[in-house]
Amino acid sequence: MHCEASASLINRMKVIKTIEQMQFFSQHGKKLGKTIGLVPTMGYLHSGHISLIKRARKDTGIVVVSIYVNPTQFGPGEDYKRYPRDLERDRELAKAAGTDVLFVPSNKEIYPDGYSTYIMVEELSEKLCGISRPIHFRGVTTIVAKLFNIVKPTRTYFGWKDAQQLIIIKKMVSDLNIDVKVIGLPTVREKDGLAVSSRNKYLTKKEREIAPVLYQALVQVKRMVNSGESNSAKVLKEVKNLIKAKKIKIDYLKAVNLMSLKDVKKLKKKTLIAVAAWIGKTRLIDNMLIK
Amino acid sequence: MHCEASASLINRMKVIKTIEQMQFFSQHGKKLGKTIGLVPTMGYLHSGHISLIKRARKDTGIVVVSIYVNPTQFGPGEDYKRYPRDLERDRELAKAAGTDVLFVPSNKEIYPDGYSTYIMVEELSEKLCGISRPIHFRGVTTIVAKLFNIVKPTRTYFGWKDAQQLIIIKKMVSDLNIDVKVIGLPTVREKDGLAVSSRNKYLTKKEREIAPVLYQALVQVKRMVNSGESNSAKVLKEVKNLIKAKKIKIDYLKAVNLMSLKDVKKLKKKTLIAVAAWIGKTRLIDNMLIK
Repeated sequence: MHCEASASLINRMKVIKTIEQMQFFSQHGKKLGKTIGLVPTMGYLHSGHISLIKRARKDTGIVVVSIYVNPTQFGPGEDYKRYPRDLERDRELAKAAGTDVLFVPSNKEIYPDGYSTYIMVEELSEKLCGISRPIHFRGVTTIVAKLFNIVKPTRTYFGWKDAQQLIIIKKMVSDLNIDVKVIGLPTVREKDGLAVSSRNKYLTKKEREIAPVLYQALVQVKRMVNSGESNSAKVLKEVKNLIKAKKIKIDYLKAVNLMSLKDVKKLKKKTLIAVAAWIGKTRLIDNMLIK
Repeated sequence: MHCEASASLINRMKVIKTIEQMQFFSQHGKKLGKTIGLVPTMGYLHSGHISLIKRARKDTGIVVVSIYVNPTQFGPGEDYKRYPRDLERDRELAKAAGTDVLFVPSNKEIYPDGYSTYIMVEELSEKLCGISRPIHFRGVTTIVAKLFNIVKPTRTYFGWKDAQQLIIIKKMVSDLNIDVKVIGLPTVREKDGLAVSSRNKYLTKKEREIAPVLYQALVQVKRMVNSGESNSAKVLKEVKNLIKAKKIKIDYLKAVNLMSLKDVKKLKKKTLIAVAAWIGKTRLIDNMLIK
């Protein structure tokens, strides 16, 4: 209640474009004893992002949402250029969800000429999505660490939809002794189960109709586990057929240990079922945790 | 004067061994509005380190000296195991120089099982010492970033003796937007010009006698530049002969741009003359800046 009140007191959302101003703002906030919640995004906000912002609003005194389509996490030939952008829309959505500061830096601010420092979380970054996107997580950890240094958050919020990203960021924070609490929030889904994602916008009407099969496949895994089946290979094979029947090209469908992301033979507690697949030209991911 | 007074008020140096305690101490200090100076060392303190500590004492409210022989910056076959260690001696020297906190973490604290996150400053880390020591600077930047996150310094102090290290750390701090001021202090030298280093301890009496030739070579470069010679190749060739005459194996002797560490053809302002050489089994480095 206190935070909601202070948010409505401010009532105007600040838009900050430079690192210097953002750092100054955060330093000032910290000196006043405020906690800072950071929601890093690539914009084109959807209900998944909104759930993160609302939780930050509940938890912390100052809510910072960053919008930055980070070039270093896109490989050559990936969708960096066509990634959806709509700052006006994002501004309204972020404000309505209780954002105090929208941090919208330019590429020049983030990666000035001669930029050359990268953070790698080895092993974890090489699994699952890391196989087809070898530089992706290096870009993610680098930009997130930079945002931590710029915004100085007390807490930061990520969706479980990008489970590997969340696990890698938690590992980086722990390994590098970064003083921030990383909160993972549940995947938000459309009514038919499709995980909400900015990339869903790419789907044609026909593709959109078949896309929920990824979710259905994950549910089917859970159903089989609940009915006593624990053999990974057997379950994954059956479920892959479900997806292939829709003429969807699977990048991977795996059962892995939640901490190590290594393949597991037996489906049990803390097994993550993760899938990535190409629906037409759109690569979507989803996952489910066996509890 | 104020800082000196507060140091003598405390009068007892605190020794902290865990990351948690160090973070707690720094957080508390920051809440009290104190500035923190960090001098990262691998111990076996010498007059070079002492000059850094004394400067930190002048500049900042709390002086933290870390002592940690960082395994990730030593390659296979290098001197990690035999690197000189003497904590009792270091404790006395650090205390006398005005240290408030000696941070002495264990390997288990710094690199727990499964540790896998590394920071790389590309290009700069691959030049000069990076050629014969390919993982060295990755280890340096990783441990230094960890220390920054643990100690939360306002300012941090490094010697110009390790010029490449200083330049790489400044680059990392700038690239990753780390909120710390990096101060480089002049190389401290023995009376005969040899740069003070913990590794000088390895030298036999005979080796110690010839070691100052590295310094003499650098001085000779400067002398030639001052007399109007600016051709790098010519100057370096002549000076290499000076070193080789002592039967010293040169790893490199280069004239490079101070920012990029790239070879330069003309010796001029902001050219760094850097040398690494094997005197018996001991690898020593030194450098000089053309002003």
